[in-house]
Amino acid sequence: DAPFALIAGPCMMESRDHALEMAAAVKEIADSLGIGLVFKTSFDKANRTSLSAKRGLGLSAAMPVFAEIRERFGLPVLTDVHDATQCMTIAEVVDVLQIPAFLCRQTDLLVAAAATGRVVNVKKGQFLAPWDMRNIVDKLVASGNPNVMLTERGASFGYNTLVSDMRSLPIMARTGAPVIFDATHSVQQPGGQGTSTGGEREFVSVLARAAIAVGVAGVFMETHDDPDNAPCDGPNMIPLKDLKALLMDLQAIDRVVKRLPTSN
Amino acid sequence: DAPFALIAGPCMMESRDHALEMAAAVKEIADSLGIGLVFKTSFDKANRTSLSAKRGLGLSAAMPVFAEIRERFGLPVLTDVHDATQCMTIAEVVDVLQIPAFLCRQTDLLVAAAATGRVVNVKKGQFLAPWDMRNIVDKLVASGNPNVMLTERGASFGYNTLVSDMRSLPIMARTGAPVIFDATHSVQQPGGQGTSTGGEREFVSVLARAAIAVGVAGVFMETHDDPDNAPCDGPNMIPLKDLKALLMDLQAIDRVVKRLPTSN
Amino acid sequence: DAPFALIAGPCMMESRDHALEMAAAVKEIADSLGIGLVFKTSFDKANRTSLSAKRGLGLSAAMPVFAEIRERFGLPVLTDVHDATQCMTIAEVVDVLQIPAFLCRQTDLLVAAAATGRVVNVKKGQFLAPWDMRNIVDKLVASGNPNVMLTERGASFGYNTLVSDMRSLPIMARTGAPVIFDATHSVQQPGGQGTSTGGEREFVSVLARAAIAVGVAGVFMETHDDPDNAPCDGPNMIPLKDLKALLMDLQAIDRVVKRLPTSN
Amino acid sequence: DAPFALIAGPCMMESRDHALEMAAAVKEIADSLGIGLVFKTSFDKANRTSLSAKRGLGLSAAMPVFAEIRERFGLPVLTDVHDATQCMTIAEVVDVLQIPAFLCRQTDLLVAAAATGRVVNVKKGQFLAPWDMRNIVDKLVASGNPNVMLTERGASFGYNTLVSDMRSLPIMARTGAPVIFDATHSVQQPGGQGTSTGGEREFVSVLARAAIAVGVAGVFMETHDDPDNAPCDGPNMIPLKDLKALLMDLQAIDRVVKRLPTSN
Repeated sequence: DAPFALIAGPCMMESRDHALEMAAAVKEIADSLGIGLVFKTSFDKANRTSLSAKRGLGLSAAMPVFAEIRERFGLPVLTDVHDATQCMTIAEVVDVLQIPAFLCRQTDLLVAAAATGRVVNVKKGQFLAPWDMRNIVDKLVASGNPNVMLTERGASFGYNTLVSDMRSLPIMARTGAPVIFDATHSVQQPGGQGTSTGGEREFVSVLARAAIAVGVAGVFMETHDDPDNAPCDGPNMIPLKDLKALLMDLQAIDRVVKRLPTSN
Repeated sequence: DAPFALIAGPCMMESRDHALEMAAAVKEIADSLGIGLVFKTSFDKANRTSLSAKRGLGLSAAMPVFAEIRERFGLPVLTDVHDATQCMTIAEVVDVLQIPAFLCRQTDLLVAAAATGRVVNVKKGQFLAPWDMRNIVDKLVASGNPNVMLTERGASFGYNTLVSDMRSLPIMARTGAPVIFDATHSVQQPGGQGTSTGGEREFVSVLARAAIAVGVAGVFMETHDDPDNAPCDGPNMIPLKDLKALLMDLQAIDRVVKRLPTSN
Repeated sequence: DAPFALIAGPCMMESRDHALEMAAAVKEIADSLGIGLVFKTSFDKANRTSLSAKRGLGLSAAMPVFAEIRERFGLPVLTDVHDATQCMTIAEVVDVLQIPAFLCRQTDLLVAAAATGRVVNVKKGQFLAPWDMRNIVDKLVASGNPNVMLTERGASFGYNTLVSDMRSLPIMARTGAPVIFDATHSVQQPGGQGTSTGGEREFVSVLARAAIAVGVAGVFMETHDDPDNAPCDGPNMIPLKDLKALLMDLQAIDRVVKRLPTSN
Repeated sequence: DAPFALIAGPCMMESRDHALEMAAAVKEIADSLGIGLVFKTSFDKANRTSLSAKRGLGLSAAMPVFAEIRERFGLPVLTDVHDATQCMTIAEVVDVLQIPAFLCRQTDLLVAAAATGRVVNVKKGQFLAPWDMRNIVDKLVASGNPNVMLTERGASFGYNTLVSDMRSLPIMARTGAPVIFDATHSVQQPGGQGTSTGGEREFVSVLARAAIAVGVAGVFMETHDDPDNAPCDGPNMIPLKDLKALLMDLQAIDRVVKRLPTSN
């Protein structure tokens, strides 16, 4: 029952400079609180609502930036992959390969991610029951890679709405995989703004607290220095200036929860 | 930001003796932890799945038992009402009238409950959005009774399943009413056992912890000395012998949460 | 496999004159198409969103109007009951007692309705699986009344939205009870207008056609000569002027469906 | 308002011989009824629940079989693509490229499919509202390909269950794209059998009739000569021997519906 780890960073790698600035800022916050950090950012947003939406730096341009972040800050890095062919390449410069929720059942992608030997973090599809994630863990383990993490990020609840079922956390934990709660995507309103995805940032801390109280290995949160002008996920990212206070709250709850007799 | 209160007791008033024993036992636990207690039990289960299922002592027989519990233990008592005609009568011997979830939009029942001047606790219908509870608060307040509590007990999620949306707690709190989380009915599986309602007791503590971490005025939990043989709600009631440990967990989390700077 | 029957009329009995006008108008349409008609209107709207919303004529004032409609037009009449004490009284002047969806599990109401010997039409709760309606049929039959009809009116689907699961119709038909599809309440958006319930009238014909093609004993539709100014259910009632064309469509489909070899 | 077209065939291309036999058999049925047919089969099942489940012949082996089916039977052929790199290749031998529901928001796949100039049939994600399919149509049209079809195949409804919202059909039709109803995947129970996906074949005709009555350009149905022993989708495919009777039912309803005055 280790303290929760943090997976955080901006939704999209917008530029080398921005990524480095964000990594420095998030690392400083995490270090000041003694929280283990994995820096997250995406080199490509492959499923934007609109064709004209920005997608990020791209694989080639992002590779040296990931490498620089690891080296300069000593941070493990996580990014998401969308295609089997990307896995082995990106694995050279990142520590965790993340499978997006929509793609969590794509066998070739899972097998290719597993083959890198890197940790694989699978987001639970919005269309999947938590107990069905066992099949996905089995696919990865059978591919020779037991280093699997599972992330809850909300389940479809009618149209344009997600709901976070806190029972999902212990159910997925039965697989033996560390379970992460993604507090920022869980407040998305898919398609809720017509040509982009909406969100309710005000509920990030509500859901994050709840997940921490249930007991998780980590929390995933996207953060940005200027979310209202960010190229993606603005409505749900946490402003960088609010991150430390939120983490302190979570840390206070986590400390109590991990010491509860029933947690052991 | 007072510590959470507890609303607890057996699903059904089975007999005078059983009710008194349970009240004594739950009071002893609550007192030992310094938790404010409202004793809950139902004189009639008015919406059982099956006609042959037991319904409880009935209004007349239950009245003196409620009175005895109040007097002997000094406990405030809560029970649910199903019909406008019951309200004024039962209000003589109980402190809180509870409106069942299925009945939360029945105007006559709300008005009659309000007219008693007692506190009215309304369970949110499984079919209602949390923001729509404002209309119900308005009905009660317009009837002259501002002493309203609102209780989350799960929302319909496909068939035979409920999901607890933790966002519901702060959304309902915007009405100004104290918000309660019903941790045992939220794990019901309505109709899940063919001719009776199922439940998943193992998730009571999961959801209760989550709600406490979000921040609630109280927790509602049905408990029984022998739930597996209880006449109703057996699959989701907390065994009496497990109640104290669970409350201690919740209390530990609540203490931290109510002291968080962001909670103020 | 008889042709579908029609249960139709205005949401609320607004006045004697309006009820008689509507009954005459709907009867003329049904007669012209050879469709069996049950006239529906409510003497009391017992679960309005707001306390200030109109509720209808009330039981006493409505009784002679129901009697007059039956006598003058030779029409069977249906109305909904909200309380066990109303059943025996209202049964004097109506042919079908309807149990509202929110109340479909209230045992006393079901038993009282059954005791009248009248046909009982139960609307399936928005929170109930279709297979769980068997328990409700059992309650009525065990109370000595096998004259039961079951009505689909949508299932909760996220917040403020209903979805009509067409599988529900054959599943409920397994009980042996005639199955009705309520095409106007199924397009409600509960609470969708803040202090009143919204609706999408444009989808009434979509869902009614679908249900007829699946095969139902009847269709339930609220209709009004001026729905935009009706005191309730305006957003989903069918304008009276559009009723005949819609029924002709449904009749054309019904004739084909009831003759299909697989329907027998 | 042309008569509905049929997209049908076995879930998986199991072998050249089986594919040819099935194409011949389905064509004979469609021809006998005068129904336009697109033959569907998958060269690869890319998102099986389990790693050990069969996946089909694969792209290279399937190419000559698709070509042979087109040439020998004069049938247009549809298959699904899972990766942008497959699109241009497979487009040589098929007429319609289908985007699987889980992948319906993957921009690169949509753009690559559009670039082939072939018709692109997009299945609506189980996690998407019907009005959000407009963004997907826009992505394809903006990529230079206006030949788009949209297919409803069920929406997430709690865990392990789909519901078919018939309103989705006219809502998607507002995009101008022909709308198809997938009657066999809509009865899937995702993950419902632990390590494979379940289904309720008995409801295929229920949902297909409903969709035809609402009005669709086409119906999609997987069929097999021995579904109980098929390598995938057995629980929901229509037995080949039942296909003709089902189509005759649908045809009878479709003829009436397409002649309704309100359909024009």
